[in-house]
Amino acid sequence: MLGRNSYGKSGIRLVRVDRGGTDHAVSDLTIAVRLEGDFEAAHVAGDNSLVVATDTMKNTAYALAKEFSGREIEDFALELSDHFLRENSHVSLSEVSIEERLWNRLSASSFEGSSNERRTARVRRSRDSVALHCGLKDLLILKTARSAFSGFARDRFTTLPETNDRLLATSLTAEWTHEAAAGPFAGRWEAVRRTLLDTFSAHDSASVQHTIYAMGEAAIGAHRGLAEIRLTMPNRHHLLVDLAPFGLTNENEIFVATEAPYGLIEATVTR
Amino acid sequence: MLGRNSYGKSGIRLVRVDRGGTDHAVSDLTIAVRLEGDFEAAHVAGDNSLVVATDTMKNTAYALAKEFSGREIEDFALELSDHFLRENSHVSLSEVSIEERLWNRLSASSFEGSSNERRTARVRRSRDSVALHCGLKDLLILKTARSAFSGFARDRFTTLPETNDRLLATSLTAEWTHEAAAGPFAGRWEAVRRTLLDTFSAHDSASVQHTIYAMGEAAIGAHRGLAEIRLTMPNRHHLLVDLAPFGLTNENEIFVATEAPYGLIEATVTR
Amino acid sequence: MLGRNSYGKSGIRLVRVDRGGTDHAVSDLTIAVRLEGDFEAAHVAGDNSLVVATDTMKNTAYALAKEFSGREIEDFALELSDHFLRENSHVSLSEVSIEERLWNRLSASSFEGSSNERRTARVRRSRDSVALHCGLKDLLILKTARSAFSGFARDRFTTLPETNDRLLATSLTAEWTHEAAAGPFAGRWEAVRRTLLDTFSAHDSASVQHTIYAMGEAAIGAHRGLAEIRLTMPNRHHLLVDLAPFGLTNENEIFVATEAPYGLIEATVTR
Amino acid sequence: MLGRNSYGKSGIRLVRVDRGGTDHAVSDLTIAVRLEGDFEAAHVAGDNSLVVATDTMKNTAYALAKEFSGREIEDFALELSDHFLRENSHVSLSEVSIEERLWNRLSASSFEGSSNERRTARVRRSRDSVALHCGLKDLLILKTARSAFSGFARDRFTTLPETNDRLLATSLTAEWTHEAAAGPFAGRWEAVRRTLLDTFSAHDSASVQHTIYAMGEAAIGAHRGLAEIRLTMPNRHHLLVDLAPFGLTNENEIFVATEAPYGLIEATVTR
Repeated sequence: MLGRNSYGKSGIRLVRVDRGGTDHAVSDLTIAVRLEGDFEAAHVAGDNSLVVATDTMKNTAYALAKEFSGREIEDFALELSDHFLRENSHVSLSEVSIEERLWNRLSASSFEGSSNERRTARVRRSRDSVALHCGLKDLLILKTARSAFSGFARDRFTTLPETNDRLLATSLTAEWTHEAAAGPFAGRWEAVRRTLLDTFSAHDSASVQHTIYAMGEAAIGAHRGLAEIRLTMPNRHHLLVDLAPFGLTNENEIFVATEAPYGLIEATVTR
Repeated sequence: MLGRNSYGKSGIRLVRVDRGGTDHAVSDLTIAVRLEGDFEAAHVAGDNSLVVATDTMKNTAYALAKEFSGREIEDFALELSDHFLRENSHVSLSEVSIEERLWNRLSASSFEGSSNERRTARVRRSRDSVALHCGLKDLLILKTARSAFSGFARDRFTTLPETNDRLLATSLTAEWTHEAAAGPFAGRWEAVRRTLLDTFSAHDSASVQHTIYAMGEAAIGAHRGLAEIRLTMPNRHHLLVDLAPFGLTNENEIFVATEAPYGLIEATVTR
Repeated sequence: MLGRNSYGKSGIRLVRVDRGGTDHAVSDLTIAVRLEGDFEAAHVAGDNSLVVATDTMKNTAYALAKEFSGREIEDFALELSDHFLRENSHVSLSEVSIEERLWNRLSASSFEGSSNERRTARVRRSRDSVALHCGLKDLLILKTARSAFSGFARDRFTTLPETNDRLLATSLTAEWTHEAAAGPFAGRWEAVRRTLLDTFSAHDSASVQHTIYAMGEAAIGAHRGLAEIRLTMPNRHHLLVDLAPFGLTNENEIFVATEAPYGLIEATVTR
Repeated sequence: MLGRNSYGKSGIRLVRVDRGGTDHAVSDLTIAVRLEGDFEAAHVAGDNSLVVATDTMKNTAYALAKEFSGREIEDFALELSDHFLRENSHVSLSEVSIEERLWNRLSASSFEGSSNERRTARVRRSRDSVALHCGLKDLLILKTARSAFSGFARDRFTTLPETNDRLLATSLTAEWTHEAAAGPFAGRWEAVRRTLLDTFSAHDSASVQHTIYAMGEAAIGAHRGLAEIRLTMPNRHHLLVDLAPFGLTNENEIFVATEAPYGLIEATVTR
């Protein structure tokens, strides 16, 4: 028996250049489309008559990008997801995810790539509901003060020393929901992001869990329309190097940055 | 308000060498541990007294690997997940995921790395239930015959030509559940994998959806204890190169392999 | 017969926090050490008595980072390379390469990760010479105007249309040599980088080759001590999407960004 | 002044299916072309009249793949490199590099991806010489016995303990030159590869240097036409986990596999 199933196109790379003003503007997007609906005949009988080809999804993204006048990825995800539902009565759910790489201006028509951070928007649209998830992905942040980890549970496998001053680094991913899936979005994303960064910087952290909650709480508190925020903070451990064998004292100064293993802390904060 | 939250350690790299027989054996594992439970005080008040450090999780994996006599990753995931629940009364869910890289024997004590494919096991264990998910990840497969894609829906954005003979390539990920989360597991994983590959090879494919269902159906049909299987098959498109400008005919022979965009097809088949 | 050989340690990850002032400072380095010298006995006879363990190289980097008061990677590479030559009379060449990830300040003690760009320094030191190569790596840049590619050679395999207005994107890597391998280095790296970016922005590009030479020429021209600069510019192609099948005109606006294949242009400019 | 310069196309992905016999055959290639020659006008004056577009290089690879009847990458690299030199009198050097992913047969027309290992061929062709370099890349190998590292130099930064029984793992890259750049190549590559693996397995290793030389020496010794072989063996360290804190003894059984830092050992062996 066929259970839950979906299909779509991922990795659609679309760069749009707006040449309207004196300054050019660049939108650098990676788009994924995913549909659910009445696709049983395709699976069970090899009948493709209701299958929207994933190549068509790709074409649709490029064509609608041309026709679409907006610049915010939230608007474009709302538009694209609506298209697939409207045009295909057998589709029950349409999900469009967009990741935007940000470029920093060098001149009127030249740009420098930003960090690995991506601005994200994801719209899940069914016949009777629409949910917009805004967010950011892979934002590297690090603090060299106000981070402790002590008083944790100890058992026979615990060797980690307590610390009241550690280096805390993470690659933040966050996704939040506004109560209304409606714009204008310009400025709103920057504001939530700013709250998250400010809280990360200022917080007296007792643990990653402590800071992740503080960041979520601050975001919910400072931004009226925010219904919920989900934060993921891998702990990219920086270990103090033991310099004692060389007759040196490491006064919280020399660290080795490690990739694996890593702590992985996730939490949702709601209103 | 704190909503759903969890934390754990990912990327624990553990290689175990068994030197017991005349031939050495190697287990090359990457382990992730994830816990849910009563962690509100840690988030809200910075009280770590109930927090099992993720460093302790890592230590536990290494220590139990030493004490554990079994070789199958399913058994080890069951053991590890049980440990965290048993030792910590405030933990409500313990999930352990293991990915195994396979090595091919060169001699009694030397080995050659296998492909990127990984054998996987994942145990989700709560106070009153345990679910074991077996699987494989990132298995590259390709077929050069018996693959068509035609008769699909066409709209104003459709440009894809129909084809009755295309190259079909994917990187298969699958996860299945046995009705009983109990061994012996040796041989069972290979058998399910074999069914998936045989079906992929033999199927007259009308689409990726058609083949994904056939593979799931065959696995459920051939393996009595299999309750459910979930398959993910990205369509790694190989496009026919247009050689006409050079006065040449491409008789389904010369392709360009592309990374992006890619179709992404997912389906679950149940009994 | 043993021919050319060398060995060393790569991927030494070192993060140093300077807590001296009111603002903390972070140096985030990845270091590689490579030695050549009298290592024939190690290779041919398994005699390790002259082998400096690569683990010792790693320890040395951490220990010297503690003792070393400077902040510039050029100085540290000079120091480290000198150490290995001075301490080991059988070593004939010592090469130290350092890549620095840059962090942007968020507060007195918190930071946001920069882009993928790395600042680089590489010192090759023999018994009678020392060469310092400064540089940058993987700097993403893009221009939306002043870039053409026309009038190129055409043969029977040429299908590329001429264009007078294309999008030009690259991931710049550059390495340059100052006539004297001596500091102070602070400010000098930023100045060369600025010249490269300004030239990229302003140049009326007839090809990547044309722009790469202009950038190198500008760097040599503007910075007196610069003896030589080597630039590598992969052409990260952005292809104009054909929207005609959808009844739309693409006025140099909608592009697909591709990863492969890519042009690869390299040139050295000397004084 | 323009110094050394070159340009070309990299990442040309070409999959060829031979449908001639009862069994299909797949060649999965990634090709790079690089030219040197009289390109000063392109750099200095923006004159493209002698520039072979890199897009044309890509087209040429696809077209010649259609016309070319051979299956060995060595032959195809010889053919392609010859084309560019023959057709362009202003080109002085043409270098073609091909990496082949190997696929294992599942049935007459289906295949399973091999490991990350690649078979490689590289031809450097000038007006009066041609050099063919055959090789392999990224072959993961590991041995659990017959590997020691002791008796190495010790200074004040040395902390590494001596060991007579360590786990040795590497990702082998090798490139060798046959005295005559002429086929038939079928079988020859497999034979050299087999010698390298057999020697790695059987060698009583005193160090990576010791083993790299033994492998090179064996290859030169066993294969008459081999003029030279260059081997690169990163030391992918597997560290013994300290289980003493848990009251357990680690009898060379439980290791942590690390990615960074890594030793990097390179040597050339000549006749």
